[in-house]
Amino acid sequence: MSKARLEGPIAVSLGDPAGIGPELIAEAWARREAERLPPFFVVGCSKVLRDAAAKRGVDLPIADVTDLAKPAAWFPTALPVLRIGNAVYRPGEPDKKGALLAIKSLERAVAAVGVGVADALVTGPIAKAELAEVGFEFPGQTEFVASWCEVKPSDAVMMLAGPSLRTVPMTVHCALSEVPKMLTVDLIRRRCAIVARALREDFGIASPRLAVCGLNPHAGENGRMGREEIKIIAPAIAALRKDGIDATGPHPADTLFAPHLRGTYDVAIAMYHDQALVPLKALDFDEGVNVTLGLPIVRTSPDHGTAFGIAGTGKASPNAMIAAIRMAGEIAARRGAHPSTSSG
Amino acid sequence: MSKARLEGPIAVSLGDPAGIGPELIAEAWARREAERLPPFFVVGCSKVLRDAAAKRGVDLPIADVTDLAKPAAWFPTALPVLRIGNAVYRPGEPDKKGALLAIKSLERAVAAVGVGVADALVTGPIAKAELAEVGFEFPGQTEFVASWCEVKPSDAVMMLAGPSLRTVPMTVHCALSEVPKMLTVDLIRRRCAIVARALREDFGIASPRLAVCGLNPHAGENGRMGREEIKIIAPAIAALRKDGIDATGPHPADTLFAPHLRGTYDVAIAMYHDQALVPLKALDFDEGVNVTLGLPIVRTSPDHGTAFGIAGTGKASPNAMIAAIRMAGEIAARRGAHPSTSSG
Repeated sequence: MSKARLEGPIAVSLGDPAGIGPELIAEAWARREAERLPPFFVVGCSKVLRDAAAKRGVDLPIADVTDLAKPAAWFPTALPVLRIGNAVYRPGEPDKKGALLAIKSLERAVAAVGVGVADALVTGPIAKAELAEVGFEFPGQTEFVASWCEVKPSDAVMMLAGPSLRTVPMTVHCALSEVPKMLTVDLIRRRCAIVARALREDFGIASPRLAVCGLNPHAGENGRMGREEIKIIAPAIAALRKDGIDATGPHPADTLFAPHLRGTYDVAIAMYHDQALVPLKALDFDEGVNVTLGLPIVRTSPDHGTAFGIAGTGKASPNAMIAAIRMAGEIAARRGAHPSTSSG
Repeated sequence: MSKARLEGPIAVSLGDPAGIGPELIAEAWARREAERLPPFFVVGCSKVLRDAAAKRGVDLPIADVTDLAKPAAWFPTALPVLRIGNAVYRPGEPDKKGALLAIKSLERAVAAVGVGVADALVTGPIAKAELAEVGFEFPGQTEFVASWCEVKPSDAVMMLAGPSLRTVPMTVHCALSEVPKMLTVDLIRRRCAIVARALREDFGIASPRLAVCGLNPHAGENGRMGREEIKIIAPAIAALRKDGIDATGPHPADTLFAPHLRGTYDVAIAMYHDQALVPLKALDFDEGVNVTLGLPIVRTSPDHGTAFGIAGTGKASPNAMIAAIRMAGEIAARRGAHPSTSSG
């Protein structure tokens, strides 16, 4: 990775044009100086962005770019937009044309990073059901990006990061009743190792502290309420410690997220979706960033959905989008400074 | 229930003498005026309280009372203590004598409320394992109190209440893998009806809004990740609404606790222990109160344990104990003002 890539911009995919993505991208650009954001460009449709900005009352000069030689040069005075298609901006009213544009935007934005004209990828929010209807074959954007990078979906690890907390769920989009069957020593060990490495290399934490939650209430109370802690989680922690990783637990999840304990670890490892997402969204709803660990490319996204219900009303907070762009830039800069650590 | 009971004090059980209970009770008494606390007395051992107060640096005059005719009269100038036994104050070093004192304190404090010499019960923190060792046959204090009141354990409903949030878990101390099997339409309907009634009668909320969580991520996404929402939770909500209770959901749990949604309901109904306790402790750790709904007597407790690790160090916050005493007084006053609603 050449030093020049540190100068490269961030590619932002539009997300569903009927959602809050376009207006938040416009808002982030408008606040680029106050928020000290790194240069970014959007892959999408300048008309949608212009209309979304106007609806929100944001002054948004746009630079329509047809190639990606120098989008960053435009950034101080206009939002560079690589036009790849058209859609009509109808906030809150998703349609097939918009879903197709969202997919194409994602594909081109990933490719821009993959071929090296952008340093990092930030994905705007999409609605999975809308995309599935027009033939998108992945459960979500993360799986698409992992596939593009030829990384197994199970090795692309979602971390949620906010000002108060970082959390990583070991299992994600499955029924709660499936969780106990899915947890294995190997799964926890592999995923935690990916987390520890990413915190070192991408976040600059020399010796990351992983606090691992139990699955059961009070972490099972020595087997009185469930034995997964004894059979699976504790052995995984022991294996991680043997590998030199500072993992502790299993901790009772209910107290681990209390204020006086949040400072004692760098990331909380949760066993299932809501164990990670409930505290993150309770504490950092407007500023949560979803970052995919274990990929050769840098990918972040605001940790919220399309919010069709408030799209176009001006109510959506841009904080998560701004935080996602900032974090993508920081990780890219760190990888650029330590090129040996940037491959997947 | 006579109007005179509004004048009755609150009975506070000591909790484990090696835990943080005694020092927090002393601290609460010391702050009685600033916090405008209703009169209370302790059932326990004045020596333990005196030593715990001294260790914490709290000036604690004590009135040793041998009967409960007028403990409230002492309250402005001294903490009334009904001595029922002795223990040595050794913070952080629980022993059998202390566990036996904790049990006796609980028994006598419940009896004091049951026979009408106290208006409400606040229980200090105990360690279940310590009490089990000396023959306490109940999983926790709540079950003991329910049994004393001849209320089925399943009809004594634990609510956690803090400044940010009230939550009620439908299942509590069981392995997570058991939760899907334990949830039934009837269980949710019965327990939510108890919650709705208590919020009306004990908390003065005329039309309580119950927001019911899903069990699965994203509340199952129309059955794509688990069917308990479709088979159990949604029908329970429909039944509750038919009964005139303002229940909504199933809501995705991860977003329900976000700041912008917390104002839209009076209580969040969770499906399992950590779904309720994680957000409560993340947001309101130092001020969470555990209140038992559905009992003929008023019972609250601070939502924390014995914290043996910090007992005697002065680090433990008294806020939850203070909030528990205040809430017990408020509920007792409300029941006293509306005596027809006070029976269980």
